[in-house]
Order: sequence, then structure tokens, then C-alpha cells
Amino acid sequence: MISMYSEEQQLGVSGTSTGASDLIITPATTFKEKPDPTGLVFGTVFTDNMLTIQWSLASGWEKPYIKPLENLSLHPASSALHYAIELFEGMKAYRGVDGKIRLFRPTLNMERMARSARRTTLPTFDQNELLECIRKLVEVEQEWVPYSTSASLYIRPTLIGTEPSLGVKKPTKALLYVILSPVGAYFASGSFNPISLWADPKYVRAWKGGTGDCKLGGNYGSAIYAQQEALEFGCQQVLWLYGDDHQITEVGTMNLFLYWINEDGENELATPPLDGIILPGVTRQSILDLALNWGEFKVSERYITMSDLTSALEENRVKEMFGAGTACIVCPISKILYKGKHLHIPTMENGPELTTRFLNKLSDIQVRCFLFYNQIK
Amino acid sequence: MISMYSEEQQLGVSGTSTGASDLIITPATTFKEKPDPTGLVFGTVFTDNMLTIQWSLASGWEKPYIKPLENLSLHPASSALHYAIELFEGMKAYRGVDGKIRLFRPTLNMERMARSARRTTLPTFDQNELLECIRKLVEVEQEWVPYSTSASLYIRPTLIGTEPSLGVKKPTKALLYVILSPVGAYFASGSFNPISLWADPKYVRAWKGGTGDCKLGGNYGSAIYAQQEALEFGCQQVLWLYGDDHQITEVGTMNLFLYWINEDGENELATPPLDGIILPGVTRQSILDLALNWGEFKVSERYITMSDLTSALEENRVKEMFGAGTACIVCPISKILYKGKHLHIPTMENGPELTTRFLNKLSDIQVRCFLFYNQIK
Repeated sequence: MISMYSEEQQLGVSGTSTGASDLIITPATTFKEKPDPTGLVFGTVFTDNMLTIQWSLASGWEKPYIKPLENLSLHPASSALHYAIELFEGMKAYRGVDGKIRLFRPTLNMERMARSARRTTLPTFDQNELLECIRKLVEVEQEWVPYSTSASLYIRPTLIGTEPSLGVKKPTKALLYVILSPVGAYFASGSFNPISLWADPKYVRAWKGGTGDCKLGGNYGSAIYAQQEALEFGCQQVLWLYGDDHQITEVGTMNLFLYWINEDGENELATPPLDGIILPGVTRQSILDLALNWGEFKVSERYITMSDLTSALEENRVKEMFGAGTACIVCPISKILYKGKHLHIPTMENGPELTTRFLNKLSDIQVRCFLFYNQIK
Repeated sequence: MISMYSEEQQLGVSGTSTGASDLIITPATTFKEKPDPTGLVFGTVFTDNMLTIQWSLASGWEKPYIKPLENLSLHPASSALHYAIELFEGMKAYRGVDGKIRLFRPTLNMERMARSARRTTLPTFDQNELLECIRKLVEVEQEWVPYSTSASLYIRPTLIGTEPSLGVKKPTKALLYVILSPVGAYFASGSFNPISLWADPKYVRAWKGGTGDCKLGGNYGSAIYAQQEALEFGCQQVLWLYGDDHQITEVGTMNLFLYWINEDGENELATPPLDGIILPGVTRQSILDLALNWGEFKVSERYITMSDLTSALEENRVKEMFGAGTACIVCPISKILYKGKHLHIPTMENGPELTTRFLNKLSDIQVRCFLFYNQIK
């Protein structure tokens, strides 16, 4: 048996090792009605069951359970509630046109989740074992994976510190759980709704020496205030800037891509490098992988400042700009409000040719073919 | 009746207003044994009761309850657990030598709590009404306030987003709760244990445009990894640096003070200014208030870089350095590990005269006299 282990257990300090083969499955016997996949609001409907795995420093990982979705019973001093000792992942299961259900590059999520755990001093785990537990959960809930090529089952692994005391320290108790939510297409079939962005250096999402490159709760709670201010300015999302030169970093909760003719006159797809303040998105990586594989234009992980962008706009060198993430896959950008001026981004006028190509290609992979696949049944 | 209201209710959008006069008190009927105040570990023992107040966008603040301490029942999608939409406060109730129980400057905590709520898009509240509810809770739990001049009852107000959906947005549900924990003296009577600090620009606690000036969970979970690394280097706490010039900002979870002869040859008590990356500590403010009131030396909110400090150490201009916070009150610093070198800080050799004076003066105020007091019974 491959074990699900904590660092302590690897070092032989304590506890028993448990894994997917120890799963105790006591599924729900009453079932919620499954919603129409065309009318879903992201993350509001949950399936009948959940996966939970308790951890303690004394006993290590306990046996994993798949059981009816229920409220968590948490001590009011739990460290997740006071010190945000918590992390999450976002991934999707797709029902392919062949009727098979698959996860999209889930090992990348498991790797990132383990990295987030280390950064916030939560226990690490055997990534293969956890993935196998998630696979089992999706199998139990397979009827919840929408019968649709434009909807999917969103998977939310979560790991929280449940230390029941107020000292600011590495937790001695934790809970790993996974909940599932059927989600619709972010955009109605084929027709993109481009978004407008508010770019103000007043709020900074992440910084060098911080945790912006991990998927920790604290990166998100601090961002909502800026998001509210963006809405007040009539924009839909925040374009996060960094540094005195106003580097473009991320958009809302997505990675950012610019397709342009760069300063040297080359066609280039550019996204900020993973220098510590950028979340290493799975969709980001997949777009880079596809573009490099095509070999049709320069693909760069590089810095782009607002000044680089405004110069390129003045010189008509910008083709498309888009956000990329698991929820929307790709999201075209049409406008940026910066220093009181509305910058028009000609993404939609240019097709958006490349943005659409990535959406279609990723969608092909996710629901139509086998590249990058993990088949789950 | 003064109401406890949300921003929405102020604007007349929704809900009923409730306050301390609506308190429903159903206290515990079985009681835990009260621990010996000399053997307490911070934040590990809780009293028999807690205060809870539910909020929703639809109904506003519901009636406050004082009821037996129990686990919280939270939806697994609760926004506090995924996006760290959460904040807390730390304050203390002291039993004075006159037998009366008092809170120390609690209105400052209420103000900061309301500011933290706004920053993380949680509902605001009537600060007087909340304070009155807390006063009632402490009254119910008065036997838990240690009969000791060196121990106290730590009060932990907490406000968490309980929105049961996964969209990253302003929560439509929240829970405010307060738990109490008797805490011992941080230092055995009179004898300070000075701490050593690890100063490495590799980890940054807070940054301009972030949330370092609010008491949000996310500021703490991200700091524990650095704290672990400090321990590995044989140091007890992190000295948080900021910027290319390595400004000294905070120490562990405390504000920082330097008492020295400054560059102009003046005796000066210095602490970093509230420029957005510093938590506006109540103990910090109280130390500044006391020192200004004494008028014996220059008192400055100013930047101090590691280079300023090392020059001053070389020239024997450093007298004392200490952390300041609700938990320890003041905490002398004796050593800093910086760029591979151990810098000796002569705090203990110098008494520590000023550090001790602040500890005694604050202790006098908290348990012996009436300045700054809010009397609770």
C-alpha cells in the first residue's frame, strides 16, 4: 500500500500511515436534485457527498472518509479561523463526448497543494493517494458531472488548521476535505463577454517574500476590497500592479496573458514570470505548453509594465489580452481604467483569434481527446 | 436602544437592529475547573461560555447570545475557510488590587476591529454595543478572571465570513463570536527573559497596498513558516524587514521599539510609523502616550533601517530594544541574527531600565489604578 503520510511520519516520528485503500465509504442515501447545467452560478450548489481526512501531529493522517456532505464541527479557536492557516485547490472533472469522466492535469494541482501546505506549515501528504481518494469521490458522485460539453464538476480540495488554541504556531491538528460543485460554462457557447479592468497601484495582491505563489486563503480575503472598488469604478475585475514601474501581474483571480508585437517587432505571447508573486496556474501552464508546442510565435515569461502596454497600444502593437484560470479557462479583456484614463484593448476586434483558439483547444482536450488526460472511469 | 448595525442597515437596506439589550443569556450549568494561574499556556484553556452574533445581508445582525462554549457548525464552503475572510482582536480583562475587573482601553480594539471588518468586506457594527456584549460576557465569566496581579483573562473577539459558496466575493453571511482564555504572566514576576531575533529579508510580513495594518487572519498564517525558520537558526522570533534598505518593522506578532541615542545625539524612543505595513497596536499606542506624557526624551514614529541600527551598535548608542503587544506587554530583545552575524543588543545590560518602567507602569494602570480604565463591575 502506498501511504498517505505527513512529513513527521516520513521521518518516522509518529502515527500510522493510511491511504486510498483505507477509504471508508458511507455515501448519502438521500439525493439532492441535480440542477440544470445551463443555469448554474459558480460554487453555489454542492453534491451529496464529501471527502474528509483528519490529521494530528500525534496520530498522523487518519482513515479517509467519503460521507454525506455536512457542516464541519470546529472548535472556535481553530487556527484556520484566526490565523488563516488554510489552503485550497481548484480543479475540474469533465464528461467527455465518449461518456468517460476525466480530470484535467490533476497532478499539477496536487503538487501545488503540497507546496501550499509547506508554506503555511500544514501537513504534507502523499499526492498520489490523495488524488486516488478524489478520484473515488468523483466516481461516487459521477452522476453529478454534467452531461454537457460546456459544464463540468468543480473540485475543491481544502486543507485547514484545526489547532484548538490561540498561540500563533504550526498547527498540531488539521482537516483535509474535498467538496464538489457542478459549474456551468463561464461564457454562453462560443460568445465571449470581454471584461474591463481597474488598474490602481493602491492595492497590491502579493509581494516578494509573501505567499502570492501559493493558493492560501489569505491571498484572497485581502483582495475583495479592491474588487469592490473596481466595481464602484464601473470595472469588473482588478488588474493587479506591482512595484514603482507598475508591472502587470494578475487579473482578479486569474493569470494574465498579452499577445502583441513586442518592442523588437516580434509576435509574442507574454505572461509574467513565476518570480514569487504569481500563482503558477494550471491553465497558465497549459497555455504556455500549447503555444510552445505550436511554435508559431515567441512565447515569453517576462515582465510587462503599464508603460510597455500603453506604448504598445499607442503604436497599435497589441492584439489580444486575456485572463486564464480553471473557472473561466480564458477570459478576454477589452478595457483598462488606469490613471483616470480608459485604455481600449482591441482583443475583440482581433477575433479574439488566439484567445478563442486556446479556449477551443483546451475544451477539445478536456472533453474531446486524450492529451493531458487522467481518465477516471 | 443603541443599535448594532451593518453598513447596509445604516443605509436602510435591510434587517432589524439588535444590540446588547437584546442579549439572550443561557449560561453553562456545568463548569470546568479553573486552572492554577501560574501554570497557564497562552490561549489553551477556555472559559465555560462564549458570545455569538449571527449576521446576514438579508436580516442584518441577529440577537446576541451568551451560551456554553461549543464547536461552531460551519458549511464546508464557508468563506473564512477558503478565502480567509476573517479578523480577530486581542484584549485583556484584569482583576485589580481593589477586586474590580477592568478592560484595558477596549474602545481602541473596537475601532481597530471595525477597520479590519471594512478592509475584508465583513459587516461593521456598533462598537459600543459590541463592547457592552463583551462586558456582559466577562461579567458572566468573572470567576475566570485570575485572582492574580500577574495573570489576566484574554478576550478574543473574532469575525468570520460564513458565506456558503465558492465565489470570491463580499460575504452575505457572517458570524461574530468572542471566546475567553485565562492567561498567565508572560514573564515570571519581574525577571525578563530577553529574546533573540532572526532578521532575513527573504520573508516579508506586510507591504504597502496590503493588509498589514489590519488584524486579519491572512497576516498571521503566512508568517509561521518564517517563524519556523527562525527557530531553526536558534532564534525565538522573526524581526520583519521591509524594502531594499531593510527597514525594521515588527517583531514576531509585536510592535517594535528602540531606545537609543539617535544620529543627532538625542535620547530617543523610536517605533516605525503607521504607514500601512504596521499594526496599530494598543500597547504601542499606550507606550507612546506614556512616553510623551513623561516628556523626558524624544518620542518618534520614524523609520529605522538595519544600517541605522548597526551603526548605532558600533557607536554604543543603543540602550534598549523591545517588542510590545497585548500578550506579553513588553518583551526585551538581546540578540539579532542578520547577514550571518549575531548582533548583540545591550538591552539587559541597561536594566532594562525603560522596558521595565513601561511594564511596571502599564501593569500599575491595568491592575492598580484608574488611568485608561474601563471598569466592568
